Amino acid sequence: MKIELHGINNTYPLICERGILSSCSSYFDKNKKVLIVTDENIPSSYYQDILNNIDQSYVYILPPGEKSKSFDNYLKIQSRLVELSFTRNDVIVSCGGGVVSDLTGFVASTYKRGIKWISIPTSALSMIDASVGGKTAVDFDSIKNVIGTFYSPSLLLLDMDTLKSLPQRELTNGLFEALKMGFIMDKSILELMEDPFNNLEEIIVKSIIAKDEVVAIDPKEENLRRILNFGHTIGHALESHFSLGETLKHGEAVGYGMRFVIDDSLKEALKHYSSKLNLPQINISKNDIPSLMKYIRNDKKASNKGVSFVFVDSSYKTNIKSLNNEEIERLIAKEVESWHQ
Amino acid sequence: MKIELHGINNTYPLICERGILSSCSSYFDKNKKVLIVTDENIPSSYYQDILNNIDQSYVYILPPGEKSKSFDNYLKIQSRLVELSFTRNDVIVSCGGGVVSDLTGFVASTYKRGIKWISIPTSALSMIDASVGGKTAVDFDSIKNVIGTFYSPSLLLLDMDTLKSLPQRELTNGLFEALKMGFIMDKSILELMEDPFNNLEEIIVKSIIAKDEVVAIDPKEENLRRILNFGHTIGHALESHFSLGETLKHGEAVGYGMRFVIDDSLKEALKHYSSKLNLPQINISKNDIPSLMKYIRNDKKASNKGVSFVFVDSSYKTNIKSLNNEEIERLIAKEVESWHQ
Repeated sequence: MKIELHGINNTYPLICERGILSSCSSYFDKNKKVLIVTDENIPSSYYQDILNNIDQSYVYILPPGEKSKSFDNYLKIQSRLVELSFTRNDVIVSCGGGVVSDLTGFVASTYKRGIKWISIPTSALSMIDASVGGKTAVDFDSIKNVIGTFYSPSLLLLDMDTLKSLPQRELTNGLFEALKMGFIMDKSILELMEDPFNNLEEIIVKSIIAKDEVVAIDPKEENLRRILNFGHTIGHALESHFSLGETLKHGEAVGYGMRFVIDDSLKEALKHYSSKLNLPQINISKNDIPSLMKYIRNDKKASNKGVSFVFVDSSYKTNIKSLNNEEIERLIAKEVESWHQ
Repeated sequence: MKIELHGINNTYPLICERGILSSCSSYFDKNKKVLIVTDENIPSSYYQDILNNIDQSYVYILPPGEKSKSFDNYLKIQSRLVELSFTRNDVIVSCGGGVVSDLTGFVASTYKRGIKWISIPTSALSMIDASVGGKTAVDFDSIKNVIGTFYSPSLLLLDMDTLKSLPQRELTNGLFEALKMGFIMDKSILELMEDPFNNLEEIIVKSIIAKDEVVAIDPKEENLRRILNFGHTIGHALESHFSLGETLKHGEAVGYGMRFVIDDSLKEALKHYSSKLNLPQINISKNDIPSLMKYIRNDKKASNKGVSFVFVDSSYKTNIKSLNNEEIERLIAKEVESWHQ
């Protein structure tokens, strides 16, 4: 399947085919240098075909996990590109999950002011979320994604076979983003969520198409695109609070984040689908609120007047409201209290 | 004078007025936070009006010089923005020369994926060169501008009074870029170069308009804009070779760089105008060529096939040619030898 997606300054093809990685070098110009950025958990078989068929191809292997999305690694990859005399006509490839994709995209957007980037997401989360919409980033000063750019790859390759070897929690990590798309864009995704693991491929493709529709209208998040932050403002704070992804994965944090801002009439449905996705328990009490507030005030969507929240009403419509500090504290306290009843 | 310039993704106004800095806070939204980035050599009177009239205004003062255009400073400014809880609706101001402008622009383009940037260039070089065209950058691994973005300010304020206090060598540093524009875009600038210090204001404005015409057609340097690199490929190498601006300033390096790629029939004119601008002597011999070659191969305009050079022929027309390593070495050797005759 081939779909044309809307990039930030360009459109680019998504090619989705089982087994495609075993012959993916055919999509590359064999006269250009290639640096593949990946992590230790990614089987080298995913990019072996590139190494076998492109003379000047190199691999940069990161330790796995959110901690790798650091400036330190950003600079190490930049150094490698300088050392290998990469020009702006050469190619950088991300092969892995969201961490690899966000970090590599940020490197690609800033090395010599922008070089070609081919994105190969291999986790459900990076297929659904990081691969579409051109957001690149690193974490800094314990704030997630606080530094980054808008920059699109020139090609996106999906091989659903890469999901076979993943533990279930990695799949659900991505499926919470798909669940979000179900509530705000495409209710047919919710129906597929009754049996998420058997409907995996369909859920992922539908989610990508839904997200792309939003990004096409508002690439730089000035209006409509803000609805994609449904569940994310408190979600990111929960994720940061629970130590950058070690206790709570991004998708799971969004799974909880949505509870604070969804209409009461849809809360049972949200919990129902969340349990299908095995949302883990978290320990949270009133004492955690000051820490959450600190993270929320540093959210990219915050302004001096307040912080924007995306609410979903009983008819699945989104409303964006700006809340001041007191209102946010009340919103969080009310929901947290209800969990302890 | 107010002129609309062509940005990367937006147009933006240039406002040029003597004495404008004493009341420049009128161009700011007083409800937004402002961080002014400047250096120790810039008189605080240039931005005092902002500090006096905007409640949440802050200053970040860099040590002067090219060495400040580092990742270290980039991260320190990012930290300050995080610490002050700047949102993407707040404002970052660059007030100073090209180093301040390039570094601040790179911070602005990447903090929360892009916040508002107001640019106040106070040197001839930054007015002519850094202020137009949206190139932001830091130096890295001893390579100039190897990391950066394309990003435009939302407002450009020029106050020619800031040039009064500058030493003459700072003025000529900028005027070599204007001399370049004279050869490739607007011969009337060359006439003004007969008396450069008395024609300063007219030379600067004409150069900005000429550069903007080029950037409007090709913002991301895919075609026409490459002519602006006239004198820069070898110029950058000379600048790096002579220790990042301590011995040879950027403009002066371009002054020498143009000699390698201008038609013999125009070489005397180039030398004539260069002497009006007091181009300092440099010591260079065949022994320096390997070092220059290393820098040239890392130039952003290099590709695997060769490095692009902009040549100017006897009728002031530009031609872009890609040269391989041997051809580049011959080009450099020929010119360097002629200096020792």
